[in-house]
Amino acid sequence: MTKIKVFGHRNPDTDAISSAIIFAHYLNEQGKDAEAVALGAPNEETQYALDYFKFDAPRIVETLANEDCEVALTDHNERQQSIEDIDQLTVRYVIDHHRIANFETDEPLYYRAEPVGCTCTILYKMYKEAGIDIPQNIAGLMASAICSDSLLFKSPTCTHEDVDAAKACAEIAGIDIKKYGLDMLKAGTNVKSKTAAQLVNADAKTFDMGEHKVRVGQVNCVDLNELKSRKAELVDEMTKQNEENGFESFLLMLTNILTKETALLVVGGLHPEIEKAFEHTIEDDFMSLPGVVSRKKQIIPPLSKQF
Amino acid sequence: MTKIKVFGHRNPDTDAISSAIIFAHYLNEQGKDAEAVALGAPNEETQYALDYFKFDAPRIVETLANEDCEVALTDHNERQQSIEDIDQLTVRYVIDHHRIANFETDEPLYYRAEPVGCTCTILYKMYKEAGIDIPQNIAGLMASAICSDSLLFKSPTCTHEDVDAAKACAEIAGIDIKKYGLDMLKAGTNVKSKTAAQLVNADAKTFDMGEHKVRVGQVNCVDLNELKSRKAELVDEMTKQNEENGFESFLLMLTNILTKETALLVVGGLHPEIEKAFEHTIEDDFMSLPGVVSRKKQIIPPLSKQF
Repeated sequence: MTKIKVFGHRNPDTDAISSAIIFAHYLNEQGKDAEAVALGAPNEETQYALDYFKFDAPRIVETLANEDCEVALTDHNERQQSIEDIDQLTVRYVIDHHRIANFETDEPLYYRAEPVGCTCTILYKMYKEAGIDIPQNIAGLMASAICSDSLLFKSPTCTHEDVDAAKACAEIAGIDIKKYGLDMLKAGTNVKSKTAAQLVNADAKTFDMGEHKVRVGQVNCVDLNELKSRKAELVDEMTKQNEENGFESFLLMLTNILTKETALLVVGGLHPEIEKAFEHTIEDDFMSLPGVVSRKKQIIPPLSKQF
Repeated sequence: MTKIKVFGHRNPDTDAISSAIIFAHYLNEQGKDAEAVALGAPNEETQYALDYFKFDAPRIVETLANEDCEVALTDHNERQQSIEDIDQLTVRYVIDHHRIANFETDEPLYYRAEPVGCTCTILYKMYKEAGIDIPQNIAGLMASAICSDSLLFKSPTCTHEDVDAAKACAEIAGIDIKKYGLDMLKAGTNVKSKTAAQLVNADAKTFDMGEHKVRVGQVNCVDLNELKSRKAELVDEMTKQNEENGFESFLLMLTNILTKETALLVVGGLHPEIEKAFEHTIEDDFMSLPGVVSRKKQIIPPLSKQF
């Protein structure tokens, strides 16, 4: 029997890792020889879920053509998000919830995509359809992935099927979904363990705004006060970065992913232009932006337009 | 509610027409507004099934961007097999059993493909999974499509899931699957209604074999004797074609799609070369070729090699 290696996308998140572990279990239950692998290490949020439900992180692989196997893709289909040597591999299964693009096979395959918020919601349905009992720890991972992708049901991508699946899985797993989900999301936004420099630099990018050089970073969290209480050290680090690199202004988005609001910490000049861009005032170095979570869609365009 | 138009591939066969009618019914049962359409008229086999189970042939469309709708593809996904203006349409569903290629969407969608012999086998499973009762006439169309695609379970593409689905559908529809299936396949290979010229020319192609011009045609049937009994008129027509067009030999494959055998009617010269190519003798103008059904894969390559 040809072995099936199952894996999610590069830079794996909780759904990518969980869906691979779960689909490998599903295939094994159907008498197939399947193993979950991963294209990277779990992030802190995912590690929290793996630890809680006592799973080892999947073995990390860079290529698979050398392993004499066929493959199953979860939570992705596009070539550039997949394993390096995907073009040399035979894809037998895809379970996904994204658009289809840059994907092609020579032979018929099993492909299951649905426009829901999480791959694990589809897997939950597949277990039900096939009449396979969902073990407690598998249900726990399913619930974790759905909480993660849906930001505890707050994301606009979340459907009623995701909510129903997560609640059913939480019951099997014996967890309080709201409490567990929040703890898991918090583990993924653990700012306590990071230095001010790590927080400020982790995800920052430089943008040329007209003649101005502006730096914009983002830190996700589930409690704005925890970050705001570290304002002094963040401002020190941002001021240092401005001086060293000639940024005219440094904007750090402190984003609460649960309440979907951003406190924008502004260090440097250009205050009038920035206030005008967002039609909000800066008070005590902060601009409060309810409903804003995306740098790409909600911060850069108004700034570009202004400058 | 946006209307969903459901259609199978160009030059529709029984699975293409049936799967569109059935998936539109499935969507309607789920409270969606769906209509089956088609990219061509039903062939004689399909018309037999539609008449038997009292369905109208779907309305034929050439474009859909003008109809303010979204679409569902059945029994195909590749752009070149689909509707002319597919690039201007939003695909919301695909139900298919082919490889995936030349297909891309901007948004997530419902995509269900399985490596089985017939699209209607997947639809049968989807009704079961969703707990939707399969009406008698819908079950009849499902059974028809599976009989067609699997050549009454004899095709190498037929899986045990196809057999199980067809039998279950036949029971719901109240038909004897072997008898009904054979009658339907026969309707699709109705040679009685065609003239010798129609049979000889319908599917014939000219091949340059070295310095020789050879014509090869094919007629599918479920009863070789019916065709063989018309040998005299077929030979007359083939002789005429050879004289008019300078073919050195005309080979007409009379293929029994049920027993998977071909009687090759050879009219003209090159007998020694043809006998050598297939390692069989020509007796009374016929060469008997058990197991041969494909011109492209089983006739042209040995001939090319010989000349």
